[in-house]
Amino acid sequence: MDRVKTGITGLDEMLGGGFLRETANLIEGAPGTGKTTLGMQFIYNGIIQENEPGLIITFEEFPKQYYHDAAAFGWNFQELEKKGLLKVVMTSPEVSRLDVESVGGMIEGYVDQMGARRVVIDSMSHFSRLTQDPVELRSLEFNFINALKRERLTCLLTRESPVLLGEAYDDSSIGFVVDSYLILRYVEIESAIRKALLVLKMRGSDHAKDIRQYDITAQGFEVQSKFEGQEGILSGNPRRMAASFVEAFVKR
Amino acid sequence: MDRVKTGITGLDEMLGGGFLRETANLIEGAPGTGKTTLGMQFIYNGIIQENEPGLIITFEEFPKQYYHDAAAFGWNFQELEKKGLLKVVMTSPEVSRLDVESVGGMIEGYVDQMGARRVVIDSMSHFSRLTQDPVELRSLEFNFINALKRERLTCLLTRESPVLLGEAYDDSSIGFVVDSYLILRYVEIESAIRKALLVLKMRGSDHAKDIRQYDITAQGFEVQSKFEGQEGILSGNPRRMAASFVEAFVKR
Amino acid sequence: MDRVKTGITGLDEMLGGGFLRETANLIEGAPGTGKTTLGMQFIYNGIIQENEPGLIITFEEFPKQYYHDAAAFGWNFQELEKKGLLKVVMTSPEVSRLDVESVGGMIEGYVDQMGARRVVIDSMSHFSRLTQDPVELRSLEFNFINALKRERLTCLLTRESPVLLGEAYDDSSIGFVVDSYLILRYVEIESAIRKALLVLKMRGSDHAKDIRQYDITAQGFEVQSKFEGQEGILSGNPRRMAASFVEAFVKR
Amino acid sequence: MDRVKTGITGLDEMLGGGFLRETANLIEGAPGTGKTTLGMQFIYNGIIQENEPGLIITFEEFPKQYYHDAAAFGWNFQELEKKGLLKVVMTSPEVSRLDVESVGGMIEGYVDQMGARRVVIDSMSHFSRLTQDPVELRSLEFNFINALKRERLTCLLTRESPVLLGEAYDDSSIGFVVDSYLILRYVEIESAIRKALLVLKMRGSDHAKDIRQYDITAQGFEVQSKFEGQEGILSGNPRRMAASFVEAFVKR
Amino acid sequence: MDRVKTGITGLDEMLGGGFLRETANLIEGAPGTGKTTLGMQFIYNGIIQENEPGLIITFEEFPKQYYHDAAAFGWNFQELEKKGLLKVVMTSPEVSRLDVESVGGMIEGYVDQMGARRVVIDSMSHFSRLTQDPVELRSLEFNFINALKRERLTCLLTRESPVLLGEAYDDSSIGFVVDSYLILRYVEIESAIRKALLVLKMRGSDHAKDIRQYDITAQGFEVQSKFEGQEGILSGNPRRMAASFVEAFVKR
Amino acid sequence: MDRVKTGITGLDEMLGGGFLRETANLIEGAPGTGKTTLGMQFIYNGIIQENEPGLIITFEEFPKQYYHDAAAFGWNFQELEKKGLLKVVMTSPEVSRLDVESVGGMIEGYVDQMGARRVVIDSMSHFSRLTQDPVELRSLEFNFINALKRERLTCLLTRESPVLLGEAYDDSSIGFVVDSYLILRYVEIESAIRKALLVLKMRGSDHAKDIRQYDITAQGFEVQSKFEGQEGILSGNPRRMAASFVEAFVKR
Repeated sequence: MDRVKTGITGLDEMLGGGFLRETANLIEGAPGTGKTTLGMQFIYNGIIQENEPGLIITFEEFPKQYYHDAAAFGWNFQELEKKGLLKVVMTSPEVSRLDVESVGGMIEGYVDQMGARRVVIDSMSHFSRLTQDPVELRSLEFNFINALKRERLTCLLTRESPVLLGEAYDDSSIGFVVDSYLILRYVEIESAIRKALLVLKMRGSDHAKDIRQYDITAQGFEVQSKFEGQEGILSGNPRRMAASFVEAFVKR
Repeated sequence: MDRVKTGITGLDEMLGGGFLRETANLIEGAPGTGKTTLGMQFIYNGIIQENEPGLIITFEEFPKQYYHDAAAFGWNFQELEKKGLLKVVMTSPEVSRLDVESVGGMIEGYVDQMGARRVVIDSMSHFSRLTQDPVELRSLEFNFINALKRERLTCLLTRESPVLLGEAYDDSSIGFVVDSYLILRYVEIESAIRKALLVLKMRGSDHAKDIRQYDITAQGFEVQSKFEGQEGILSGNPRRMAASFVEAFVKR
Repeated sequence: MDRVKTGITGLDEMLGGGFLRETANLIEGAPGTGKTTLGMQFIYNGIIQENEPGLIITFEEFPKQYYHDAAAFGWNFQELEKKGLLKVVMTSPEVSRLDVESVGGMIEGYVDQMGARRVVIDSMSHFSRLTQDPVELRSLEFNFINALKRERLTCLLTRESPVLLGEAYDDSSIGFVVDSYLILRYVEIESAIRKALLVLKMRGSDHAKDIRQYDITAQGFEVQSKFEGQEGILSGNPRRMAASFVEAFVKR
Repeated sequence: MDRVKTGITGLDEMLGGGFLRETANLIEGAPGTGKTTLGMQFIYNGIIQENEPGLIITFEEFPKQYYHDAAAFGWNFQELEKKGLLKVVMTSPEVSRLDVESVGGMIEGYVDQMGARRVVIDSMSHFSRLTQDPVELRSLEFNFINALKRERLTCLLTRESPVLLGEAYDDSSIGFVVDSYLILRYVEIESAIRKALLVLKMRGSDHAKDIRQYDITAQGFEVQSKFEGQEGILSGNPRRMAASFVEAFVKR
Repeated sequence: MDRVKTGITGLDEMLGGGFLRETANLIEGAPGTGKTTLGMQFIYNGIIQENEPGLIITFEEFPKQYYHDAAAFGWNFQELEKKGLLKVVMTSPEVSRLDVESVGGMIEGYVDQMGARRVVIDSMSHFSRLTQDPVELRSLEFNFINALKRERLTCLLTRESPVLLGEAYDDSSIGFVVDSYLILRYVEIESAIRKALLVLKMRGSDHAKDIRQYDITAQGFEVQSKFEGQEGILSGNPRRMAASFVEAFVKR
Repeated sequence: MDRVKTGITGLDEMLGGGFLRETANLIEGAPGTGKTTLGMQFIYNGIIQENEPGLIITFEEFPKQYYHDAAAFGWNFQELEKKGLLKVVMTSPEVSRLDVESVGGMIEGYVDQMGARRVVIDSMSHFSRLTQDPVELRSLEFNFINALKRERLTCLLTRESPVLLGEAYDDSSIGFVVDSYLILRYVEIESAIRKALLVLKMRGSDHAKDIRQYDITAQGFEVQSKFEGQEGILSGNPRRMAASFVEAFVKR
């Protein structure tokens, strides 16, 4: 299978080699979990390591915020833009959904001219401003995502989770529409906050099922080892596993 | 009793031999739990193993997505369509509910022409767009399901669950209307996500009551052994059973 | 006191001999917990064992579904109908509430002609379609139930619970209006789903207070022994009692 | 202080001798917890033991239901009515709130003619049908209760709790308006349902603070001993106290 | 710092000597927790022990209810009113908010004539009837409180908490507006209900941070010792601390 | 990187040296957690220690309340205002959002005249009065914050959390918009209330991930050591870690 490598330490291995080409991949997380960093790195590594030009579509922050945030990791986005390998576009859900559905639109143009192969949508949450009706929203999202896939782009879609810790009832249906679904979570362990990554779903491919620690370092997103000896990690508030007790007793 | 075999490893045994013929069977699960895979496999095995042609009615994805997803498991859906043994139909709840209630409709046509015996509705959740009124929705669903049963079809109905982990208050009444009710759930165990299957209800037949692990492998849906030593599996966040403690102590 | 025996193994004993005559008795449960089976068996045993003709009023399913479901337990409902001992009536809450309040209505007719002594209403949940106003709904339900009691019928009323596991906030007030209140619940124990029955309330009679297991067998509803060594059964997600620990330690 | 004895085993002792005279006392509980039984017994014992005539104001059930329910405990309400010592009045919140606020109303009449000293209002929950506005409802309830107190009646007010087990968020403010507040709760202990009584509040008097078991026996309401060795009783789903563990270990 | 002593056993010590002069101090609690008793005692002790006349502004109960409740603690409010040291005023939020904002209002009058230094507002919860808009409510409350402070009054504001046990989501913002915030809570310990007091916030002063037991005795409000060996007191449903276990084991 | 030191004991170290210059930093907490104290100290230390003039924009309290509260910590705000190093401005969200978006506005004026480098917005919660629409609110907040950053101010934004203990579902999106996000929480430990500080997010910088105790002392905000041996601190209701048990046993 044709894999689109993220180039992120530990992540490609979890994904069985990378995302599948021309699929839509959702990254969901609370503020500060690194969704945008993951997206920028996906685009940067695509350009540098795989020679695949990329787009970043932003619905809120200005391009210069991305240049600035990328620079902190040593990624020179402005230079890549000058070379025609990257384009950071600030637009709105209203405009971009019409754009992808018309012939000769902006995104189609970047694909044609730059040869863009990857796109980050930061974030899909802004689509909720298009309509209050969940049925219509699902249809809009589905059509937008499919239009991107028709442009043969491999898509990374960020989504904001409003819950800082713990599980929330999620009334969104976007998880059903995408090809893969990655979840970023805060977890309190030993009086500190760690970050957890889970590949919940990946259509048409095997993937790691374990919950791994990750961190945002000076080099960017870095997936680390699996959590050990904890129950209820995804609740954000895990407990030491009973097993640890038993072991401690039995070993005596 | 006349059993409609799913041909899925472990599942027919849980169902006491398979679904009962001409019944409506609900499969509910979160994104990525494999509802559609289960449905495709039910149809595929029906054709290949039992010589029972089948229909897949989809309300969102295009047929080519099903061809593509099926191919990943080695199931050649396009060939089966050419042979007249399978039909993947993309339509809407609006159209299909009218269709089944009129004489000489499309679905009736496939039953007559192809001899279709099985149908997958993917997914019943899209019916919620027909009305905001839960009483009317129940009536619409009930009538649709009964019309399919009158066509002597054995029906597998998928339903999307919005909750990733844990129990949700479910205000739907479709569970009361169907003949059997299967639940797919994510479960966090030892810092990894596993999948659990439960046959909650099966009218007119005995069935397995235990909660089993399952996985989506290269061959499709595969039901495995029962969970052991866990309490609260259906909460998504189980704990090791106290019994394990006691045993550990007592064995010393 | 005049007892109306259900003839269901274990249930009459829990009820102190059976329901009280000419009372309204509520059976509440999630899909698949066997509310309708319990109702059919109450009617069937009344006819066969106590020579008390009975009515089943259904607001959704067709009579043939009842014939079919009853047949699976070896109960020949169509024959009983021919003998004038049973009547399965499909109607609506709208019609039946007017019926019982007028002289010479249908239900009154069956009481007069068949000598019906027992009635099942399957289900009271459909009354919610009559009004959105909880005060008016309560009044409608109260009047309907009282009208049935004036016909000297002993009533078994089913009610759908939307929650599969766990406790739900119930904003219905029907529990205050009925004479007895039985609850059916799913319980996860040792990685399997069992069923629990509780007689919460019984006006004018003592009753069992313990929570008992039950099952739907080939012979119908069967109440079994009390649960043992579990805490929190009605939460659906019980835990082994601490007592088991203590015992295990102390016995050493 | 002038105490109004309930004559109920164990209850007067919890109340420091009985309710205070000319106060409003709230009894809140789920279906089947015995609110009405407690009310009837308060009136019956008042007449028989203390020579204090009483009124029962009902907003739903017919007087004959009270006669029937009382008879099950051996209390002959119809005879007491004939003797002019008791009056069971079925009315509505609309009528009775106007009645108590006008001179020469029905309730004033019973006080004057019968010398009524006690009243049961069964139930205050029906006041919610007078208005949707919580501020207005509180004012209506406050005025109604005060009017009863001005008639020098000692009032027992029942209130329906919609929650079968567990704690509910209660948006009512009636607890702030009354002089005492008694809570009846179901509790699951050792796989059975027991009943718990708590005097939460009692203005101007000391009272028992512990949570006691009670039961409805052939003689009526009977308060029993305190619960022992349980934590979280009022959650409805208590756990054995850790203390039991420690003890078990230490005693070895 | 200038301290306004409550004269309540244990409370002044928790407050670092008393409330700060000319501040607004919130007391929040469920029915029966003693908010009004605390308020009355604050006023009574002010008059008797500190020679500071006081006002009680009530929005629901009549003054005679305060006289009566005070008398139960041996406090003769009517006599103090005759001496011009106390005034219990029954009014409405509508009137009193206009009153404090106009020159020469009633409250200003009492300050001028009686030399009032302390005021109790019983309760601030009644302000919610002025508006449904939380932003406007906050502004009304803020202005009212500030107007009282401009009169150089030290204010004790009661607030009703609708939750009997456990933590509630509180959508009020009054806690941000006041100078100190005291919380009264019911706690279930060893099958009985105890009362807990916490000083959550106190602007400009240190204060006790521990959760103390208190009781309403014949002498009024009495703060007692800190809770010991319990976790989760403020949940209302605490558990014995694990530490107790460990100790028990280690001591052996 | 250019760091803006808070000068608060322990906090700069958690932030990797201080906030990043010209960023927006959110401080969220319940009443009494010290948000405003932290803000005042940030401004005060900026002036005294770093020679950076500062602004405090308040949407509710009067400047004199800040003077008074600051004085309690020994900070003479009025003197600093006279020296032109500080300005406390009481305004409204309506006015200030227009102000920052126009040329020559008030805030721009203070930056130009005073050379203000730091600003506190106390509190952002008041923006919710501008609109009920969460999409519009986010846009207003985003634009306001960006306008402040364009003035080259380093911003500390307070935000009120309505929950006293425990985790709340937060439907605000401001956390996604800011550069760093600090959370202040109450925690119940050993029957007392302590305060916890967490740096959840910090764009473009490493930061401490552990949850630290802090207190408001006579010198102001003081960050102390990490919590130890507790699980679930951010729930507000932590439990002793199982590890403590194991240790206790193993050490024997």
